[in-house]
Amino acid sequence: MHNADHDPADHGPAHHGPADHGGTHRQDGPRAPLSPTPRSTLTRKRDRAATDRAVLDRVLDDGLVCHLGVVLDGAPVVLPLMYGRDGDTMYLHGSTGARSLRAVADGAPVCVTVTHVDAVVYARSLMHHSMNYRSAVVHGRARVVLDETERTHGLRVLTEHAAPGAWDYARLPTAREAAATMVLALDLTEASVKVRDAGPVDDPADVAAGGVWAGVLPLRQAWGRPVPADDLQEDLEVPAHVAGR
Amino acid sequence: MHNADHDPADHGPAHHGPADHGGTHRQDGPRAPLSPTPRSTLTRKRDRAATDRAVLDRVLDDGLVCHLGVVLDGAPVVLPLMYGRDGDTMYLHGSTGARSLRAVADGAPVCVTVTHVDAVVYARSLMHHSMNYRSAVVHGRARVVLDETERTHGLRVLTEHAAPGAWDYARLPTAREAAATMVLALDLTEASVKVRDAGPVDDPADVAAGGVWAGVLPLRQAWGRPVPADDLQEDLEVPAHVAGR
Repeated sequence: MHNADHDPADHGPAHHGPADHGGTHRQDGPRAPLSPTPRSTLTRKRDRAATDRAVLDRVLDDGLVCHLGVVLDGAPVVLPLMYGRDGDTMYLHGSTGARSLRAVADGAPVCVTVTHVDAVVYARSLMHHSMNYRSAVVHGRARVVLDETERTHGLRVLTEHAAPGAWDYARLPTAREAAATMVLALDLTEASVKVRDAGPVDDPADVAAGGVWAGVLPLRQAWGRPVPADDLQEDLEVPAHVAGR
Repeated sequence: MHNADHDPADHGPAHHGPADHGGTHRQDGPRAPLSPTPRSTLTRKRDRAATDRAVLDRVLDDGLVCHLGVVLDGAPVVLPLMYGRDGDTMYLHGSTGARSLRAVADGAPVCVTVTHVDAVVYARSLMHHSMNYRSAVVHGRARVVLDETERTHGLRVLTEHAAPGAWDYARLPTAREAAATMVLALDLTEASVKVRDAGPVDDPADVAAGGVWAGVLPLRQAWGRPVPADDLQEDLEVPAHVAGR
């Protein structure tokens, strides 16, 4: 049952292999391998590390919120945030009044983690109970996006991540609305991915003893039926980007 | 779309009200109100803070992994971890070889966050798109559980959190297995909860303009069908604690 305990020296690829083994991404040039630093390079549980940037992209693209860590007054603060990804850039945003985000904007080091729990793993022994999961950990320093064109782009990436199809449907941000929002960009250079996707690994003696069921119970996220807003007076159909999700 | 951006000065109750307005918990004595420190006391978006410990308990009990933040070499590290809760104590565990957990064991300050995304909120304007979510943030320092009885209790709490019913079904940990696992306990004294559970909040002008659908799209977690392990030779029925989840 130790499979969800990650470590910086435990969370990343064992080898700096070639970056792109297929998968879709939006950059033309060659992309750097994951994890060029010791803290994102694997020293333990190497079998769970993924070196492929396409795996990182998938883990990030499948998530809805990330957990951003930043140090305030010497102590860590971990906060859930919406985000989006474009190529090797992660966009985050938030109110300019939030102290943690001001620290991030001032260049404090950050760690951003996205985790999916895909299944609970039931073993013959309690200590081999585990979870199947995918997690991405990104280290770095974010920059405040000041350029207006990139800000709008970042907001679009963020919005489309949370609500695909919304950008071309709902009212666009005004200049005033955009100005009240801080958009941050984080480079995905120093990142690592871990994946556990397997059945239980039991001691041979427990397997031989028999009599205890073992396997995995998958966990999925499922969208429910759209609920119209209370103040939606008109008889509007649910748009395709919501109904079809 | 700023509703998932939390802040330490933004994540907690506005008032230190009485703690227990019903709900279930496992302690007999009166429980402290949430958030007795400035960093876990709300200064912004007070409407999203919950003062009730029962809400905290529920958010923690509904989660499968937490995100633990700790400072290593001056930079934050955020890692997903399994956990469990008993009363006002959160139990964490991991390998004694993990550098981040050794730092936690040595008394480094930690921040543990559990987040649920319950819905995506579609508004008439893009900037009011949001998420319905529940999140709990706990600050403190963990202690290593050395007492053997409490260690076993902590492992039981952790296991039953991830796989309810497993403790009385699968093989119990041996002394050797238990010794290889570090069990950490974190007090829930300094904790805060935020909940957004509402429809879109649009500008009156956008509501009046009409023509754009708005509402929420709920997101649920759903268990799939159990998949037996490859090495499960026998024809064993899926036990009730797995089949009935």
